[in-house]
Amino acid sequence: MSETRQQAERAHRAFLRLSTSVDRTQILRDVAKALETNAAPVFDANRKDLEASRSTLSSALYKRLMFNESKLRDVVDGIRQIAATADPLGRVIEETELDEGLILRKVQVPIGVIAMIFESRPDAAPQIASLAIRTGNAVLLKGGREAAQTNAALVGVIREVLQSFDVEDAVQMVSTREEVSELLAMDDLISLVIPRGSNEMVRSIQERTRIPVLGHADGICHVYIDEAADVEKAVKIAVDSKAQYPAVCNAAETLLIHRNFKGTDRVLQALRDAGVQLRIESEFGHEFLDLIMAVHTVGGVDEAIAHIDRFGSRHTETIVTENAVTAERFLNEVDSAGVFWNASTRFADGFRYGLGAEVGISTNKTHARGPVGMEGLLIYKYQLIGNGHIVATYSGDNARKFTHKKRQV
Amino acid sequence: MSETRQQAERAHRAFLRLSTSVDRTQILRDVAKALETNAAPVFDANRKDLEASRSTLSSALYKRLMFNESKLRDVVDGIRQIAATADPLGRVIEETELDEGLILRKVQVPIGVIAMIFESRPDAAPQIASLAIRTGNAVLLKGGREAAQTNAALVGVIREVLQSFDVEDAVQMVSTREEVSELLAMDDLISLVIPRGSNEMVRSIQERTRIPVLGHADGICHVYIDEAADVEKAVKIAVDSKAQYPAVCNAAETLLIHRNFKGTDRVLQALRDAGVQLRIESEFGHEFLDLIMAVHTVGGVDEAIAHIDRFGSRHTETIVTENAVTAERFLNEVDSAGVFWNASTRFADGFRYGLGAEVGISTNKTHARGPVGMEGLLIYKYQLIGNGHIVATYSGDNARKFTHKKRQV
Repeated sequence: MSETRQQAERAHRAFLRLSTSVDRTQILRDVAKALETNAAPVFDANRKDLEASRSTLSSALYKRLMFNESKLRDVVDGIRQIAATADPLGRVIEETELDEGLILRKVQVPIGVIAMIFESRPDAAPQIASLAIRTGNAVLLKGGREAAQTNAALVGVIREVLQSFDVEDAVQMVSTREEVSELLAMDDLISLVIPRGSNEMVRSIQERTRIPVLGHADGICHVYIDEAADVEKAVKIAVDSKAQYPAVCNAAETLLIHRNFKGTDRVLQALRDAGVQLRIESEFGHEFLDLIMAVHTVGGVDEAIAHIDRFGSRHTETIVTENAVTAERFLNEVDSAGVFWNASTRFADGFRYGLGAEVGISTNKTHARGPVGMEGLLIYKYQLIGNGHIVATYSGDNARKFTHKKRQV
Repeated sequence: MSETRQQAERAHRAFLRLSTSVDRTQILRDVAKALETNAAPVFDANRKDLEASRSTLSSALYKRLMFNESKLRDVVDGIRQIAATADPLGRVIEETELDEGLILRKVQVPIGVIAMIFESRPDAAPQIASLAIRTGNAVLLKGGREAAQTNAALVGVIREVLQSFDVEDAVQMVSTREEVSELLAMDDLISLVIPRGSNEMVRSIQERTRIPVLGHADGICHVYIDEAADVEKAVKIAVDSKAQYPAVCNAAETLLIHRNFKGTDRVLQALRDAGVQLRIESEFGHEFLDLIMAVHTVGGVDEAIAHIDRFGSRHTETIVTENAVTAERFLNEVDSAGVFWNASTRFADGFRYGLGAEVGISTNKTHARGPVGMEGLLIYKYQLIGNGHIVATYSGDNARKFTHKKRQV
């Protein structure tokens, strides 16, 4: 058995113990404290990563790689917040009496072993580890090469705490691409893969595994300015959707404008003033992730919906209009994770949605869609409690009938 | 573009229309009526299928292939029941005020285009088509070769009704294995695959696609008889779990018995009396689907849980015991879709659970687990309704705070 397979098996055993037999809240509190206590060696490790990358990384990436007092403070506060949320495990979602003395319960449980692949940002490792601990899942983490020392130091601190609860292997690192490829083939042991990073990285993972992948490759978001749009709102929403932070998946890439909209010149000028390059009637379906926007004129909401269906990535789209009937059609008929009315596409985010934490943004059509919070790391099982009940009683002639009474939970 | 790809694209367009612009309840009522009116040609088609298979099929399969007055009655009643259930689309699952005038709604919607692959039973086609229509999904159906004429006749009747609502392509047949292989590669158009049939068929589909597959290959279910089991209950549950209908996935394959249980001889004799062949200490993890059962002696609940973890398929397991503490451990620590206490594994079924209809039984760890009803064909989208709201307002110095008030729905 390969080393990586052994890691995954140890993770599976740790998941079984973590999800049932330990105080996960206490683990999280201890992890927060241990990160504070061990700040110095973590900062040392980060300095080594930063030195190694000084000449090769852009200043933006270099800044993301930095893990300092303020980043540590955010991470520790985040873990304490997660520790303070109610334990999601064991929650009874539904309860049905099938017959007298025969009770069916749908109970919230973790998914199992999750593989998380992320790029350079070192605060991702403690964040996802904490979410995994809170939800009783084990996690195998593959971070970016640039942050290798920082990640190793952070995960080392977390594992030391886990060890004192005998669930050390609930959080493990994998270090090479070959190991990731091995993990992606273990659909018997790993139940979910969460990649966070460039579209190329996410797409490459989606193409190499049969394990469910929670995430999105592209964020091709659209702003549709309707004939009946308010000009001021159209200007604000177009500029915010594109230019407030263009490098992220919920930034808009294409502007659709109704040909009878009176404020087109003002909107386009406002975008130019915000530094946006406009590509008129070209490059639809392209994720610029930059101050560039495709612009397309349409004859109405039907054409806008059809354009989004053809070129979009089912992430997030918004309509600007004062016409409630048109807005209702857009909200119902556009098949995207987020459909907005008179609001910026940039609101598509777990923190802004109030989910507490964001595991990722999913363009999947099953399990979890849009910004995903902790509930994306959870599933359910059915517990059935009887007293010697058998199916023969409910079959054939004289079959006893089920009561199927829903109970309040 | 291949014919099959064109079919999938037509299905996608039909899904967009079916889910938003037509009276799905009326369609279902009309389908039920049309199946009654067109019974004669359907029975004719079925006679042709039966004649073609007379010499090659076993009598059990021949009986499953038969589509007569009584099967039609069941199908039509089932469709009318589905028509009578509340429309699941548009239901608001959660509502949150993000800020004054900025309301986030999580709304139930269909998944999209679903590929359904099933074997000879011809009542499967109208059942799954009706569930798809109720939930606003389009479905591409591939039935068994033996039922080709019956399926074509049934789907022909359904499509004629759909045509009168301009959504004919929401239900389509595919006929060859090559077409199925093509569909399994279209992860951009098809969002869920549901195979129902032999383990070999299901496994082959799971191995050939990156589209989420709802179902299960194996049903390796376990009965664990604890030291503290009541002998009468143990006898009843062991016999019912194995022998009540051994050819199905929720029938038990392995009997685990605590070495101190006093009634072992009585349980084993009762199984033999029910015609069950016992395989003592061998063939663990084998799905017999027949009157054969592996038997293994264990030293306690820990050993039983470890055995199930190693050899089971995470489908359904039951413990027989009068000890509530031991039962609680089994219910919490066994990581299967169904964990039962003093009840037969055969209860793992959508109708017995009161789900109204069963789409399949899933051993997946994401989206849907265990017996899956209509909710397995549904997902959600987020609608955000604002009035010119932009993210810049909530960023930087003087950032406005979100209220994140949950509203009752």
